[in-house]
Order: sequence, then C-alpha cells, then structure tokens
Amino acid sequence: MTYHALDNNTVLDYVRSQPELKALFSDLSNLSAREVGDGNLNMVFIVSNPRAPTESLVIKQALPYLRVLGESYPLTRERMRFEAQALLLYNELTPGLAPQVYVYDEKMSLVAMEHLKNHEVMRKSLVARKQLPLFADHISTFLAHILFKTSDLYRTGHEKKALQASYINPSLCKIQEDFVFTNPYMESPENNWNTEINAEVQAVRRNVPLKLAILELKEKYMTQGQALIHSDLHTGSIMVNEQDTRVIDPEFSFFGPMGYDIGALLSNLVLNFGAHFAHTRDAAARAAYQNYLIETIRDIWLLFAAKFEQLWLENSTGELVPNAYWHFPEGETAFAVYRQHYIRQLLQDTAGLGACESLRRMMGVVSVWDISSIGDNQLRAIAERFVIRVSTRWIVERSSFSSADDLVGIIREEAERAERSVNGDP
Amino acid sequence: MTYHALDNNTVLDYVRSQPELKALFSDLSNLSAREVGDGNLNMVFIVSNPRAPTESLVIKQALPYLRVLGESYPLTRERMRFEAQALLLYNELTPGLAPQVYVYDEKMSLVAMEHLKNHEVMRKSLVARKQLPLFADHISTFLAHILFKTSDLYRTGHEKKALQASYINPSLCKIQEDFVFTNPYMESPENNWNTEINAEVQAVRRNVPLKLAILELKEKYMTQGQALIHSDLHTGSIMVNEQDTRVIDPEFSFFGPMGYDIGALLSNLVLNFGAHFAHTRDAAARAAYQNYLIETIRDIWLLFAAKFEQLWLENSTGELVPNAYWHFPEGETAFAVYRQHYIRQLLQDTAGLGACESLRRMMGVVSVWDISSIGDNQLRAIAERFVIRVSTRWIVERSSFSSADDLVGIIREEAERAERSVNGDP
Repeated sequence: MTYHALDNNTVLDYVRSQPELKALFSDLSNLSAREVGDGNLNMVFIVSNPRAPTESLVIKQALPYLRVLGESYPLTRERMRFEAQALLLYNELTPGLAPQVYVYDEKMSLVAMEHLKNHEVMRKSLVARKQLPLFADHISTFLAHILFKTSDLYRTGHEKKALQASYINPSLCKIQEDFVFTNPYMESPENNWNTEINAEVQAVRRNVPLKLAILELKEKYMTQGQALIHSDLHTGSIMVNEQDTRVIDPEFSFFGPMGYDIGALLSNLVLNFGAHFAHTRDAAARAAYQNYLIETIRDIWLLFAAKFEQLWLENSTGELVPNAYWHFPEGETAFAVYRQHYIRQLLQDTAGLGACESLRRMMGVVSVWDISSIGDNQLRAIAERFVIRVSTRWIVERSSFSSADDLVGIIREEAERAERSVNGDP
Repeated sequence: MTYHALDNNTVLDYVRSQPELKALFSDLSNLSAREVGDGNLNMVFIVSNPRAPTESLVIKQALPYLRVLGESYPLTRERMRFEAQALLLYNELTPGLAPQVYVYDEKMSLVAMEHLKNHEVMRKSLVARKQLPLFADHISTFLAHILFKTSDLYRTGHEKKALQASYINPSLCKIQEDFVFTNPYMESPENNWNTEINAEVQAVRRNVPLKLAILELKEKYMTQGQALIHSDLHTGSIMVNEQDTRVIDPEFSFFGPMGYDIGALLSNLVLNFGAHFAHTRDAAARAAYQNYLIETIRDIWLLFAAKFEQLWLENSTGELVPNAYWHFPEGETAFAVYRQHYIRQLLQDTAGLGACESLRRMMGVVSVWDISSIGDNQLRAIAERFVIRVSTRWIVERSSFSSADDLVGIIREEAERAERSVNGDP
C-alpha cells in the first residue's frame, strides 16, 4: 500500500484490510470512525463498533507537514517510526504505562494502538483540580526505567550506540530546538503573547544571563546523547485516570539529556499551578490544589531519584562504570558519592531544561490550554508572570540546586507574590 | 573483490588492478612493497617504484582484529570507512593538512593515499628535540576548522545530525572508553607500568576525587556529540617536517567533545616534556627544549581559540545560535560573552579530557615511545611522576581554568619539582 492520508471513511477500509485489526472487532459491517487529533503533527482516528462499546482502537497517522503551521512546514513522515519504536520499547521496559501497539505500518506512516477510552488527557484533569493518587508513583517508574535502561549506566556501548543510531530524528528535534530553546526569546513572526505581559516578555528577550543559560541548555539538548528521551513529555502527552497512567505521543524521541523529560513534566505542573490563580477563584480551594501540585512535584522527583538509584544498584551493567572501578578501599563510598553527583546533575538539568519548556509557553507559538483557557487577560497575566518568574529562576539558579526543596522553594516564594497580585496588592 | 588481508606480494597485484593507482607509476613491472605499520589495528604498506623515487603511495588496510591484542579482540573492519570519510573531509575543509586519498575500497577495507616520504612521525621529532616553527599555526588551523565546521555552530541541525549518523563508531569508541578512561585506573590484567612508580599508580587507583572526575570526563566522551573529533590525536597521529604538517589515522573518528582532540595533542606534549628529564641530561638543552614545548602548548591554544572565534564571527550559520538571537540592546556584548564562555569550557574540557590520555599512558596497556624508550627505570620514574602530577591536576583543577596560563602554570610548578629529583634532591 502506498502512502495516502486517511479520512473518516478510508480509515475503515484500512482497518478491514489488516488481519490484526479485524480480529479486534466482532462485527466489521458497522464500524465508525472520528478524527479527534488536537495535536499539531498528525491525524488521530478512533475506530469503534457502536454495537460493542468495548471494541475500539486508535489509528495515528503522520501528515507530511506540521499541521499547526500548515503545509509550509514540511516534515518527514519517518517520525512515525520513532513513535512506534518508542511505544514498543515502553511496552517492553515499563509494561502498562503506554498504550499497547497493534500494528505499525511504516509505508502508511501509521500506528494502530489501544484506545484509552477510560482516560483523559492529564492537562484536562489538572485544570479540573482532580487528584491522581497513583500518578507520581507511575510516572516516576516510567521515567526511571526508560531513562536508566537506555543509558550508558545500563547498556553496553555497542547496544546503546546502536539504539541511538535508530533514533536520529533531526526534523522533530528542530521543532523543539526552534520553538522551545530559541524563537520565543527573540523576535520571530510566529510568537504570540498576552499583551498584558508585554513588558515581561520584552524583559526576557533582553535578559542576558537568562539568554546565555538558555543557550547552554540548548547545546545540552542538541549534543548530550544520554538516554532515549520522549522529548515532549508535557501533561498533554499523558493519559490518566485515578488508577492508571499512560505515556503517549513519543514521536519526538531521540537520545538527549534525561532532565528534559523529567523537567517538561514538572514545569507543566508549574504551568498548571500558575493557571489556578485564574481558574480557581476560591482561595482555600486554590491553596489546597496548589499544595497537591507541590507535593506531586516533590514526590515525582523523590520517587524518580530513589528508583533510578535502586535500578543502578541492582543493574550496574553499563559501559560507563564497571563494578571493578570501585574495587579499592573506600570504593563503595566513592560509588555512592558518584551516584549522588550524577543525580544532582540530573536535578539541575531537570530544572533548567524543563523551565525552557514552561517559559516558551508564555511567549512562543504554542500556548497550553491551562493558560489559554483563561478568559480574563489580567488574571491570565498573573498566572503568566508567576510562570515566567519561576521558570527564569529555575534556569538561572539551577547550578545551586541540590534537592527537590530547591525547586519547590522557588514555587512557594513566587506563589506568595502572585497571591498578593490576586488580592490586588501591587 | 572479496576481503582478503594483503601481504607484500598481493598488495602489488592490488595496485596493478586499480586504474587510479596504476596511473601514479611510470612503470608497473618493478614495484616493491614493504609493510611498515607500527600501529595496533592495521597493516600499512609503502608501495614504490625503485626506478623513480618520487613515485610511491601508502596502502592502509584494516585487519579484522586489534593487532596489539591479537585475534582475541575482534573489531569490525568498518573502521576503515570512518578513516576514509574523515580523511576526505579533512582534505575538503583543511586542504594540505592530511594526506591526499587516491582510493577508498570499502570491500577490501583499505585506503590508498599519499606517501608522506619527507615527513616523520611527530613523536620522533619531539624526542630528538627538533623545533617545528610552523606546527602550532598548522595544527591550530586544522583543529579550529574541523571542529568548528562539523559543529552546531556552523551546520544546520539536519546537516550535523546526518553527518553524526555516518560516524556511529562503537568498536573504536570502546577502545578509548576502556583504555583511556577506565581500565588504567583500576585492576585490569593488561595494565603494565614501571615498578618504580608502583606507589604512585596505586595512589591514582585510590584517589576518589580524581576517579570521580575521570568518570565525568568519560561520560562527556561517551555522550557529548559536539563535533567530529579525530579521537586519537596524539603525536603519533601527526606527520611533520619543518614546513609541513599532516594529520593521519582518523579511524577513531566520531562525534564527541572537541576538547578531546585539542587535549590529546597538548597532553602528549606534556608527555614529551616529561620524557626530556631522562632523555636530555644537559640541563641547558633540556630547559631550552622544554621552554619550546611550553611555548608550543601556549601557542596551540591561543591560535586555536583565536581562529575558532574568528570562524564563528565570520560563519555564524549553525543551528545553535541564529544571529537574530542577539538582536537586542547589548546583544553584541552578550554574544561576545557567550563566545568567551564557550571557549573557556573548551579549555576546561581540553585539560581534563587530554590529561586522561597522558595519565593512562603511565599505567595502562599502551605506553608511548617518548617514555618507553627511556632505559633507566629511575629516570623514567621522574618523567612519569611529572606526567602523573600534571595530568592529575589538569583533571581535578580544570573547572578553575580560564586561560592557557593555567595549563602552563601547572607544568612549570611540577617541572620545578621534577628538576629537584633530577638533581638528586628528595
């Protein structure tokens, strides 16, 4: 089959042509499809059997251009290979934390996968102030296992470099290089922002220490092939309910710095924290949910760090450090110090790389629904100023960070300032 | 032609079978060949026409195992592809600073190239205290152009990542990962060292801050795909005479940290500096040549840094920093500060990564001729202790370095100590 973009009709023909997909339905005569993609790069169809509510699947197909920017931004359809490879690896390394893959069709640039019908996009849950009691445990397991087990701490050099070679992903990398690490901080025609924060946006674009730090982080993103990262792990790439967590949309995957994934997640929780200054007018409800977000940020980091170190202790098999390197008096202590150094560097990368993701949402081409759904521009500005301040400090002050308290302390300090604005104080 | 290892006879048949090579000789009936390889990985033949002294060429062929360790260390012959690609790129980017390539035969894993018959291996010149007045200028041009023009400072993201993908070189990387960054600093059966420095070797293997710093540098070597590096640029990989400089043997090439190449070169000058405490018994001659080496180290760094920055100013075309990023008041100043930061980081990488190369030569599997040619083990120990001290300090103190004076200052301090040993003081 040669490539053709599917629509709500032809996607049904496609399903009926594939044995693995046909087998999922008790009746093929009455399938229906709807396109639900709200992303920027792809078509997403839900194909279901209205007579049997449990029978459904998702088909995600790459378009040959970046959807949000139209046909003027061509992108290779090869990106669906990165998504399929990564989803299959997730299912192998962290079963149950990503959708199951039924078919990967390279020629059609599509993946047919499990329909997560009892889940919603995490960003939506967070705006609705839902608490997700198992989320920090689930996502820290995902992050620790995927990042550790694709790194030089776990793999031989040959294994890791072969895996890295299969994720050379320049087109999707360029999207993040441009729209996370560059264009938002300078004049670029696609940027847009709330005019209420025009002064703050202009100040960011003139802030020399910040801009130099962002460039250092961009170089890290572009050159440090540390582990297989999802590279777009914001709260729109995670499907949740109270019991379950699934990571989706890994088409940006490549070998990059681990901290970018952890950081994108945490900084999107900061974005949501800020949004509640506008969405949640009741001070007690706001404080309660913001405290929940702070605890979640802290828990994700602490659980991630503990699981990552435990995996390291139990699977010290990688090229980077052979066990015999520590065979000397005080060697065990030195190994412990090394692990602490390594994990502290991950914390600093998490803060800096993640904050580039939240900062750009305030002034680049793509906002997030947490913020863009705020109707009142003055209230929105309070949220945005909070995010700009926290993000800037996470970037500029990151080299001094040594624990989750450093991340959280800045959120608390800037939240006090935002509370005063909510209450009308200057 | 299927792969077969050539010998002094079959290499002549090979030359006669290749139109590009036949054309280099006025008479094919009387060619002679000799194998001259003193490396660890390959056969190297010089094919010449005894009746016409100007007619000769070199054929370098990869063996399917690591020669120095025998057939027990298999290596893919693909490494000759990396060497051929790199030599061709060198000829494109820095013409005249590498041998000309006549034929690259992928199936035979060989490269036929220019015979540098008026050159000698730089290590030999340095042991003989020859001064090379143009060397610092030549090699700084090579380093600045190759490193800058394969980096994200010069290339688009697509270009750089495609180039990087063609240099995924796990087998040769593993040799350096093992024998530069790991095994010498722990118990490993292939290590050997002068028993006179047994105490110093054991101290290195118990030195926690040093071992942790070496691991940081190893991770940088393994993960930072900054530019195409030669990755074995010691003074045995450079052919010289008073007028000319050629870089050879880039089979280890891959995308790694720039500082590893600059550092391998400078640290091999430190090795040679140390060797003269034994080779050059006349104090005035020793001081004169050691001063020449110090000036060469300083000149290489200063010329490299100046040329690298000039290339950057004239060719700021890469993915990392678009010119528009600096379009704000004080932007030009910020760009200058960024260049200074970037180059200072290169200096620190140069010191640390380079010093791993010299330190391992004192206690790993492969020594260097500068040192191994010293017959008296007590004199050899003076040289080795000097190299261990300088290397250790370059590694552990590198984060404080901001100029070539920091590199040179440590050499001078440790040279004073070594002079006292030469003179019999404790």
